Amino acid sequence: MDNKTLAEIDSIANTILADYGRGKTIDKTDVFNQPNKDVIIDILNKLIRIIYPGYFKDKNYKIYNVKNNLSVIIEDVVYNLNKQIAITLKNNDDYIDADTAGIEEEARVLTLRFLKTIPKVREYVETDVEAGYEGDPAATSKDEVIFCYPGLYAITVNRLAHELYLLGVPLIPRIMTEHAHSKTGIDIHPGATIGKYFFIDHGTGIVIGETTVIGEHVKVYQGVTLGALSTRGGQNLRNKKRHPTIEDYVTIYSGASILGGQTVIGNNVVIGGNAFITSSVRPGTRVSVKNQELEII
Amino acid sequence: MDNKTLAEIDSIANTILADYGRGKTIDKTDVFNQPNKDVIIDILNKLIRIIYPGYFKDKNYKIYNVKNNLSVIIEDVVYNLNKQIAITLKNNDDYIDADTAGIEEEARVLTLRFLKTIPKVREYVETDVEAGYEGDPAATSKDEVIFCYPGLYAITVNRLAHELYLLGVPLIPRIMTEHAHSKTGIDIHPGATIGKYFFIDHGTGIVIGETTVIGEHVKVYQGVTLGALSTRGGQNLRNKKRHPTIEDYVTIYSGASILGGQTVIGNNVVIGGNAFITSSVRPGTRVSVKNQELEII
Amino acid sequence: MDNKTLAEIDSIANTILADYGRGKTIDKTDVFNQPNKDVIIDILNKLIRIIYPGYFKDKNYKIYNVKNNLSVIIEDVVYNLNKQIAITLKNNDDYIDADTAGIEEEARVLTLRFLKTIPKVREYVETDVEAGYEGDPAATSKDEVIFCYPGLYAITVNRLAHELYLLGVPLIPRIMTEHAHSKTGIDIHPGATIGKYFFIDHGTGIVIGETTVIGEHVKVYQGVTLGALSTRGGQNLRNKKRHPTIEDYVTIYSGASILGGQTVIGNNVVIGGNAFITSSVRPGTRVSVKNQELEII
Repeated sequence: MDNKTLAEIDSIANTILADYGRGKTIDKTDVFNQPNKDVIIDILNKLIRIIYPGYFKDKNYKIYNVKNNLSVIIEDVVYNLNKQIAITLKNNDDYIDADTAGIEEEARVLTLRFLKTIPKVREYVETDVEAGYEGDPAATSKDEVIFCYPGLYAITVNRLAHELYLLGVPLIPRIMTEHAHSKTGIDIHPGATIGKYFFIDHGTGIVIGETTVIGEHVKVYQGVTLGALSTRGGQNLRNKKRHPTIEDYVTIYSGASILGGQTVIGNNVVIGGNAFITSSVRPGTRVSVKNQELEII
Repeated sequence: MDNKTLAEIDSIANTILADYGRGKTIDKTDVFNQPNKDVIIDILNKLIRIIYPGYFKDKNYKIYNVKNNLSVIIEDVVYNLNKQIAITLKNNDDYIDADTAGIEEEARVLTLRFLKTIPKVREYVETDVEAGYEGDPAATSKDEVIFCYPGLYAITVNRLAHELYLLGVPLIPRIMTEHAHSKTGIDIHPGATIGKYFFIDHGTGIVIGETTVIGEHVKVYQGVTLGALSTRGGQNLRNKKRHPTIEDYVTIYSGASILGGQTVIGNNVVIGGNAFITSSVRPGTRVSVKNQELEII
Repeated sequence: MDNKTLAEIDSIANTILADYGRGKTIDKTDVFNQPNKDVIIDILNKLIRIIYPGYFKDKNYKIYNVKNNLSVIIEDVVYNLNKQIAITLKNNDDYIDADTAGIEEEARVLTLRFLKTIPKVREYVETDVEAGYEGDPAATSKDEVIFCYPGLYAITVNRLAHELYLLGVPLIPRIMTEHAHSKTGIDIHPGATIGKYFFIDHGTGIVIGETTVIGEHVKVYQGVTLGALSTRGGQNLRNKKRHPTIEDYVTIYSGASILGGQTVIGNNVVIGGNAFITSSVRPGTRVSVKNQELEII
């Protein structure tokens, strides 16, 4: 590079550096006290291997003995998750007065408590595979559901992240679900409570909000929103029930929106494509958009 | 790690191991007889380089002679695809009585038959590039279409996966199209039959079902579903025509849904944004949602 | 591999090679004069680290001194961006008569001019973080917005790509925004002009066209299209205003479409979910779909 260019680079660097000193929110220069997204995604990938032990190979673990293999992965997850949880606790307002030793012990306890929920997560995920296979005529085997269905991936990540969310771990559950969102176009907030046998078909464009409650055997198609009626209240609405409750055996076809914290969709309801629902629907009913008027020229 | 933590990890590992022994679907512990998703995606990337020889660099192939380069890549694809097809055949119910030698010969034959379809795939893809450039005023060159358009990527992957699907290869075509789905938000089942000059604009949120048949010069926008009317029949509906037929020169604007295996959209039809179509539309007509009633406060 | 298979591979390679010689658009065999997508995405990742200095770690830069670190990254970006811009200029019709030295000087000037816009981009992005936190009751901190929100990622990439677009750099801005599109399902054309405090919630399925103009404090939800009325004109419509203008403090709820280059949405308007708007809306009004007729069985 010629000297003129180097001088220009120096001047650009100085301008940006001066800008870093102006106290912007986006200027946390202490990188080493921030959670590491790559590490968290690596933890997530290892958790998924623990959930589905025979489906995903990993070049780094060539140990054939299943128990040794599993112990090695769990140790790895514990070590790294522990570190990341400690960092997020340190940055959290609730722990502003805690000392380092206290935070680290808390992180250790949360990490182990989380890992103990894995058998429960596996119990739920097993039912999701079943629902995916039974619910989709295009599925030729359960292997296909496990290997290919983005909906199964998204609900698996959500079930893991939800356990971290229930334990009060900041930031990490959301980083996990947003990773799944990025890969699948399915945005399930870690706060959402979802029953067994949950099936998402096709998946892209689904939004399921933080305070949604979903029962068992629920089926959801692409483009469905389970959302809030309005968010004009912004931060004042935090911790209020803003998203709907969906009871058991409900099917929600593509493009439907169900909005509002008081909205309850009863057992066995079928919501037709593109329906826009802002109030409760009684059990057993089938709701569909009345003949859309089409103009033909 | 202190001893208390290590003991807890050991206890967690034991609980999960005991759980692995309970015969869940998600517990295939023989990893080495499962297809490898990473390898399949690597094969797909190499196939795309063969389709578009000058667009994508690869650090691993520094051979300047085009023919040597091509032979090396094809050999690599043949070797790995052969292995993956053999694994999926072994896991398939249709081959339950076949011996290893028979399966391996069948995998070899399918692999080579598939590679012979590449010139046909290239012939189709060339027309898709043309359609993308001609159809979009925001496209400044065909290079831009090839480098940037997610719709072109999705249809390229679909055309490759469709050939594997026609040959009866299990699982692998779906792993390929779901990879494209993950990257683009466009979910085209490998079973869908799609004619030349196909153009998807913007792309996100598109679903095209397994038994869809699409003619030539068809243009589809974001959020379009070509789907089934109902999937309540689940696995009983397998192999039935559940998705629509779209004839030539049809344009389908954003958010429209066309559903049902008996639904035929005739030549030169234009389907307006958000239309919800569940019955056939005669050639040459233009269908749009009649003035949506808007409330203004 | 046995000889029979090798012979078949050779025959397949010859057939494909013969096909390469037929002058298809998809056959640019001079790989070394094409822009490199991987390099451009690497540049983008480094630019994002410059924008948010403390949020994203990079194993390759272990230099603790902030200024040295920044200078190293900027030098790297300048070097590579310069090279990529030169390649895209060479391939561009507007530079068909320019000599190599002229193109390289032009690339150098454009690269440095672009880097000088970084403080402006940072000024805008800072307001987007603010808008994301204030606008979403599910956001527990600004860190969460920066680490997790796909909408913030998409607008950050757009703001960078928009500056390159304004400088007339071909192809590269679109490769950047399509990378963001792939990761987020949010498709913002680099040509779109977007004011401060822009907030996209959830994000998937959003399309914002090339000639869209958006004011300040605008909030957009999943599935929103700011698009063209019709693109039947194809390449003839290039450079015409085809997409809407959105003024300040407008909220557009999920699934709404606003179409047409003459459509102006005035200050403080609220557009309800799924509304389909093809003409202007006066300031201060609230537009929503009139009771959708639902059929209950």
